[in-house]
Amino acid sequence: MHDRLTIVKVGGKVVEELDSLKAFIKDFASIAGQKILVHGGGRSATAIAQQLGLETKMVEGRRITDQNMLDVVVMVYGGLVNKNIVAQLQALNKQAVGLTGADLDLVRAVKRPVKDIDYGYAGDVTGVNTEQIEDLIKNGVIPVVAPLTHDGKGQMLNTNADTMAAELAKAFASVFRVSLVYCFEKKGVLSNPADDDSLIANLSYEMFDEYKESGVINDGMVPKLDNGFAALKRGVSEVFITNIKGLSSGLSSGTLLSLD
Amino acid sequence: MHDRLTIVKVGGKVVEELDSLKAFIKDFASIAGQKILVHGGGRSATAIAQQLGLETKMVEGRRITDQNMLDVVVMVYGGLVNKNIVAQLQALNKQAVGLTGADLDLVRAVKRPVKDIDYGYAGDVTGVNTEQIEDLIKNGVIPVVAPLTHDGKGQMLNTNADTMAAELAKAFASVFRVSLVYCFEKKGVLSNPADDDSLIANLSYEMFDEYKESGVINDGMVPKLDNGFAALKRGVSEVFITNIKGLSSGLSSGTLLSLD
Repeated sequence: MHDRLTIVKVGGKVVEELDSLKAFIKDFASIAGQKILVHGGGRSATAIAQQLGLETKMVEGRRITDQNMLDVVVMVYGGLVNKNIVAQLQALNKQAVGLTGADLDLVRAVKRPVKDIDYGYAGDVTGVNTEQIEDLIKNGVIPVVAPLTHDGKGQMLNTNADTMAAELAKAFASVFRVSLVYCFEKKGVLSNPADDDSLIANLSYEMFDEYKESGVINDGMVPKLDNGFAALKRGVSEVFITNIKGLSSGLSSGTLLSLD
Repeated sequence: MHDRLTIVKVGGKVVEELDSLKAFIKDFASIAGQKILVHGGGRSATAIAQQLGLETKMVEGRRITDQNMLDVVVMVYGGLVNKNIVAQLQALNKQAVGLTGADLDLVRAVKRPVKDIDYGYAGDVTGVNTEQIEDLIKNGVIPVVAPLTHDGKGQMLNTNADTMAAELAKAFASVFRVSLVYCFEKKGVLSNPADDDSLIANLSYEMFDEYKESGVINDGMVPKLDNGFAALKRGVSEVFITNIKGLSSGLSSGTLLSLD
């Protein structure tokens, strides 16, 4: 039986404001066993870009990453957000290391081919190298992973954090019993986004298809769930969508995905 | 006999312009055996700060680091400069990991006490934790270290890169036979800063004292050499001051420090 590894992806305001970050880190640190944290940082990147006079362009929720915007996301995701999380974990005596996909060659990607839209320096993941960090994880170190990849030729690339978490989960599924947790502002997947009590506690792939078709599930939730179901299909043991409360209560609330 | 570990500190334009960075990385990567790279990034930090409308204040070559400036150096040193170096090393098939003092609890510091000058979030090093990265280094991984520390209570701090390199050298001297190399624009320590041929090939502590008194050695070179001699006194095997050419020629040129 493999050891359990919990991979938590957190984004939004939670990681970008010091008070909520501290609260989140405390809950995250209390998860038993081995773990990886994947974080976003889009709002901070947008704010810094604006201060630098750069306009943020998004297409279907994805950032257009030109050279200047790449510098911003490498600074903000790889530097500011990542190191503040690591420092907060160290303050709780949790041994942590901040990584991008370039560090220890963790996640390689190719620059997204231009079809209808030129996303610029956006990276589509081609491979995850678990070898170097497996021992660190087994020694109790928590990798804190920024949503950045590299192409193996010296180029950093910007990769969606939900995708990054799913790719790590799939790759580590051969070494650990992996639980993938998407932690965000809402309780989980809601059948009515305006009603916080409309939580779908169990979501099968068939239901997901129906909800998608009827428009109940839409926007940013669709790629998140696509990523989640893809991870389940590739050997990840459990995929949860929840909020901090769900995370801190030992995943007793939220949406649990299932393939049947 | 301990294995050799070469710790190179590089700063200035070399790491902050892509062409010279690539040339430097190639030379650095060709150094035989185990190694650590410590980098600066002050010019980039000053440039980004300026774009953000922040004024850079320096006192005796040290940056005054208020909250906004701290965010800038964490972004620029820990993100932009660090990750570009790591990606370039990976492009040469050199396994590397970018670290700050917070990562793996590598370097702890205290916020510098306010005496005559309030340096803000400047960190004076209190300890180096070699334990976590020793195995990585022995497995051939190159730590790329940004000049940032943490206080163990969740606060990132800004630490001089020359000091960071010397502190790492001293700490690793009990585990490795350490060579510390300060790589910068000039050939080494010059007896006449205007004359590139006035290289002092061997500099004893006594000579350093005399040159300091007569003003031949001054400004930024003094703390660099103070750091270098302190490292020698604490068990570091060799300390060199050289440029890229000296580095790439197997340290056959430059200034070698000695205690007698």
